[in-house]
Amino acid sequence: MLRVLFLQQLYQDFQSSHAFQDEPKALYQPVNYILELGGKRMRPLLTLLAADLFGADPTRVLPVAHAIEVFHNFTLMHDDIMDHAPLRRGYPTAHTRFGLNAGILSGDVMLIHAYQFLLGLNDPSKAQVLVEIFNEVAVEVCRGQQYDMDFEQRDDVTIDEYLYMIELKTAALLGGALQLGAFAVGAPDRDINLLKAFGRHIGVAFQLQDDILDAFGDPEKFGKKPGGDIIQQKKTFLWLKAQQLADASTRLKLQGLLNDSAISDEVKVAEVVAIFKLLEIPALAAAEKSRFETMAFECLEAVNVPKNKKEDLLALTYQLMGREH
Amino acid sequence: MLRVLFLQQLYQDFQSSHAFQDEPKALYQPVNYILELGGKRMRPLLTLLAADLFGADPTRVLPVAHAIEVFHNFTLMHDDIMDHAPLRRGYPTAHTRFGLNAGILSGDVMLIHAYQFLLGLNDPSKAQVLVEIFNEVAVEVCRGQQYDMDFEQRDDVTIDEYLYMIELKTAALLGGALQLGAFAVGAPDRDINLLKAFGRHIGVAFQLQDDILDAFGDPEKFGKKPGGDIIQQKKTFLWLKAQQLADASTRLKLQGLLNDSAISDEVKVAEVVAIFKLLEIPALAAAEKSRFETMAFECLEAVNVPKNKKEDLLALTYQLMGREH
Repeated sequence: MLRVLFLQQLYQDFQSSHAFQDEPKALYQPVNYILELGGKRMRPLLTLLAADLFGADPTRVLPVAHAIEVFHNFTLMHDDIMDHAPLRRGYPTAHTRFGLNAGILSGDVMLIHAYQFLLGLNDPSKAQVLVEIFNEVAVEVCRGQQYDMDFEQRDDVTIDEYLYMIELKTAALLGGALQLGAFAVGAPDRDINLLKAFGRHIGVAFQLQDDILDAFGDPEKFGKKPGGDIIQQKKTFLWLKAQQLADASTRLKLQGLLNDSAISDEVKVAEVVAIFKLLEIPALAAAEKSRFETMAFECLEAVNVPKNKKEDLLALTYQLMGREH
Repeated sequence: MLRVLFLQQLYQDFQSSHAFQDEPKALYQPVNYILELGGKRMRPLLTLLAADLFGADPTRVLPVAHAIEVFHNFTLMHDDIMDHAPLRRGYPTAHTRFGLNAGILSGDVMLIHAYQFLLGLNDPSKAQVLVEIFNEVAVEVCRGQQYDMDFEQRDDVTIDEYLYMIELKTAALLGGALQLGAFAVGAPDRDINLLKAFGRHIGVAFQLQDDILDAFGDPEKFGKKPGGDIIQQKKTFLWLKAQQLADASTRLKLQGLLNDSAISDEVKVAEVVAIFKLLEIPALAAAEKSRFETMAFECLEAVNVPKNKKEDLLALTYQLMGREH
């Protein structure tokens, strides 16, 4: 884990020294604001670890790592508008703080700067493929966000559709972060693809874990009120699985609970969680999460580098997977 | 002009055959909608003409031309949100038709697809610089839009600031369209830069002409109510020049007119236009426009290709410059 800490510091220094100084200030203030809100910096770290895996100097891929983080924060800035989110990491979201127009335009310019940082790799022989990989992932993230919004309006979302949505919206960028890091340092195609698959599987596992923690996590450690997804009527794995397994009367009860404005949120969450437990949803969700974890680790296993080289990536993964229990 | 018509058709065919078929539909419907609203396709045509200028097959740069047009329409989609515009080319704007979230997210995915089309040039040896040029222009367009919004809140905008703003917001992309077309077919650096400068100067001239036409154009030919800029209190060249030249009492009168809610828009426009005329603003604006036209034509003149090759580009320019009188 020492290596992870070192890379974390390496990235943090790069990021701090690349705060935007450009004019007009109103355009770049929201950009610096969201980037300085913090977060785990998981994605840029994956890019550095991927380069590290092949024995390359991770400083070489710092601009690529930053491109990923800037892109990620662009999606957060625009998603927060679309989701009417007032807070992000405990602070006002960018559009709440700076206005809708700033949220839109500063997000746009971040997306463009992401491409600029990507080319900061400064290896023209790799530019075409580098940008192609980035494009592909970026389109997937947008498609995932649209599916997520579409699903709010639908009552017939299947579990497969849900898994596909979170693969696009969340997991694709984790895969992309690894893929770009490995590609940037000239890793073999087979290994690049295995790392990409590792990232995507582990990303789905992360999201399933978030679903589980939202309903069953320790609010102390999880840092937010439990049952947010339930109150927002999000079609998570838990909800969809419950719909699938419940008999007709339980299904009606679930729907009735959500639509009953006379019941407090706390009671709603408690009743829904009780039904989830009755249907053994926690165990089923944990099994689904494990299934993706197993697929992820099989991919990582198959990457053709010495086993000890993979330890940091594994350590980071466990740290992230276990971060909230 | 036959060549221009041919290239116009060439681009139109490319565009029609590249309508987005991807899923989810809610993401791509607004994209196809705005692209099919039409417009003059001036920017992609400039890219094709730039390639043509150097004797290259313009079909080679069709994806680059389309990248520019997709990018341009992305900016329109987001600008229309920021400007609360209900109509675009006589039709509901994308966010009016499909909702705010669609306007944001479909715009985002257009920006990414613009990069995808750009790489459709399929010349990896040029990818790094191609994307770098594109990035630079794209950032300028965002900065220009931010300055434009900033200026609405300021009363001390100078004419130089205004000219810089329209260079970024409008002219940079015209320069970029030419620059990318020329670069894509391997034109010499000197000629690329001259074409870029031609596009930027002519772009500023276009915008000055739009400013003039908005106040003094024939509404029949101009296709919109005259004085829109005046009603919206836009700080155009005309307005800023008038502020500069007017004596204290005239300046007060101008401000008073705009803030007087008892006067109809028609009367406001007529009174402001009368003051503009008194101050000889039309002639001064026309002179400023000519100054940029002259600079533009000097740049084009210096491009090292046979004179007859430049005729189509000149013809297009005159057609566009003269389109509304």
